[in-house]
Amino acid sequence: MTEEILLSHGEGGKRTRDLVRTLIVTRFGNPILAPLLDSGLLGPIEGEIAFTTDSYVVTPPVFPGGDIGRLAVCGTLNDLAVCGAKPVAISCSLILEEGYPVKNLVRILDSMRAAAQEGEVLVACGDTKVVERGKGDGIFITTSGVGALLPGWRPSPRAVSPGDRVILTGTMGDHQVSVLVARNLLEISAKVLSDVAPLSPMLLEILARFGADVRFMRDPTRGGVGVSLIEMAESSGRRIILEEALLPVSPAVRGVCEILGFDPLYLANEGKAILLVSPSASDAVVSALRCHSYGRGAAVVGEVADGPPGALLRTAVGGLRAVDYPVGDQLPRIC
Amino acid sequence: MTEEILLSHGEGGKRTRDLVRTLIVTRFGNPILAPLLDSGLLGPIEGEIAFTTDSYVVTPPVFPGGDIGRLAVCGTLNDLAVCGAKPVAISCSLILEEGYPVKNLVRILDSMRAAAQEGEVLVACGDTKVVERGKGDGIFITTSGVGALLPGWRPSPRAVSPGDRVILTGTMGDHQVSVLVARNLLEISAKVLSDVAPLSPMLLEILARFGADVRFMRDPTRGGVGVSLIEMAESSGRRIILEEALLPVSPAVRGVCEILGFDPLYLANEGKAILLVSPSASDAVVSALRCHSYGRGAAVVGEVADGPPGALLRTAVGGLRAVDYPVGDQLPRIC
Repeated sequence: MTEEILLSHGEGGKRTRDLVRTLIVTRFGNPILAPLLDSGLLGPIEGEIAFTTDSYVVTPPVFPGGDIGRLAVCGTLNDLAVCGAKPVAISCSLILEEGYPVKNLVRILDSMRAAAQEGEVLVACGDTKVVERGKGDGIFITTSGVGALLPGWRPSPRAVSPGDRVILTGTMGDHQVSVLVARNLLEISAKVLSDVAPLSPMLLEILARFGADVRFMRDPTRGGVGVSLIEMAESSGRRIILEEALLPVSPAVRGVCEILGFDPLYLANEGKAILLVSPSASDAVVSALRCHSYGRGAAVVGEVADGPPGALLRTAVGGLRAVDYPVGDQLPRIC
Repeated sequence: MTEEILLSHGEGGKRTRDLVRTLIVTRFGNPILAPLLDSGLLGPIEGEIAFTTDSYVVTPPVFPGGDIGRLAVCGTLNDLAVCGAKPVAISCSLILEEGYPVKNLVRILDSMRAAAQEGEVLVACGDTKVVERGKGDGIFITTSGVGALLPGWRPSPRAVSPGDRVILTGTMGDHQVSVLVARNLLEISAKVLSDVAPLSPMLLEILARFGADVRFMRDPTRGGVGVSLIEMAESSGRRIILEEALLPVSPAVRGVCEILGFDPLYLANEGKAILLVSPSASDAVVSALRCHSYGRGAAVVGEVADGPPGALLRTAVGGLRAVDYPVGDQLPRIC
């Protein structure tokens, strides 16, 4: 193997074959990927199927608490999990820039393998393309995921009712701030780790125990809790009120936000979920979430109310203001 | 909608939402994509599931006979079809470069829609990311596909036996030559159209009629018929002999190859398949393929022989030479 990625690694010949066999098949080795057919043959899947995809272009590709590989696996698992789907298989498609160090790729693939093991999913198919220097940015990864819905549960935004509680599984903004700090644009030495994590084991256990009381879930990635809440209010046709005083933010993230003028409500998370849950079950759901390492900071942060659809924030001093799409540009390429 | 893609189209806020709703949901509109959940809910799928993915980085993104959108849809459908899977759903994940003209994106999305309709598949989920100017190359598309295997048929490289025929569904190299001509690097005005096409309707009909006689199929994309044959010989543990005189190449492609010193055996195709078929059925399979517009040039081009595994070419003058991985670099970014 060369030290750097060459254009010929993407041409489909011997170098492509060697790269795929040496770095990828060995790493993700499983009987579905290994025959290197044009598709991974997953066998029959019982129940209803969920299917999702995301491309990851985060810069820098390695940041405190994670890297683009972990992000790509977790992001896809979380998109399945919030729809109530147990992950069955994911794909891994790489777009590499000529000259990308092979040792960085190896580190990222190791990280994907670890995240896939943690999230209990196998990598069933993949692809590798290489673009010339200056036509990419090191590494982009696209993952797709196939999952099987838990029997009897489906996302039901239309079942959301006044009185339902809004549960957030932990602090806001850790992922985006960790990426910003890693960019070194700022004279900030805050120690903030990305929250990137596979939520499927935790969320699927919650659904198995409390499914009848969980109406609808989202993972607040790009656009943060704010934009996710706007979209949840829209899908459910309900008014959702967040309590500013209850929204968890770590001191380090709060410090960075104060210096830079960011609102943590709109910062991306990669290991958090928002659950809309019936009032009678919300305390039990919070307790159950807190038993998981990725749910230790779970809390009720708001409530569904009567009134016209939309997301509102009750400020610390008691006023109500609309949660709207953020004005002006946030920072790009955080996932 | 602005005339050019902005970074904020990828930030997850209002511009992202407007782009997705205006350009994408309306175009691919179907009840699985439309709710914009974190996953597309496909419902139950009977039978065994196949799953595949590919990233497309072709330059230029529009070439004679097709564009990156048609390529992305057809490539994924063909990877399912050669494994015997009827396409159920595909994903569409875009990585756009800041400044990319929205009208070009619209053209490519229209082309994806048309190819998906032709290939009888729906777009169930997607994602859009934007990278800064100089960090991408206009547009990259990653598609994944989920399909259901035809009952009773699975790719069976180990069932390939001496005497089996090698069927190629048409001429070699049209896709790669059309892209090379489109690059304008050459003072060549050859009229060569890419063969990019969805083969699933044709191949699935063949399997439904002749499944017991079809052992194994591949679509010879990157690396061409040559590399696909090497890999088929390896998977089946058989010796495969191609007859040079029977390999179909259009006069225009042959002309370009002679000028540039390319061997059409290694040029990429995007609308062709190689089938290994029992000798008793091969004439009937060729006749059936020729009834389809994408199989009009189908022919037997070789045979599985006794002897050690490997791919060989019987030249026009009767000698046998090994088909090996191409030496030296082919041209990159042709798919």
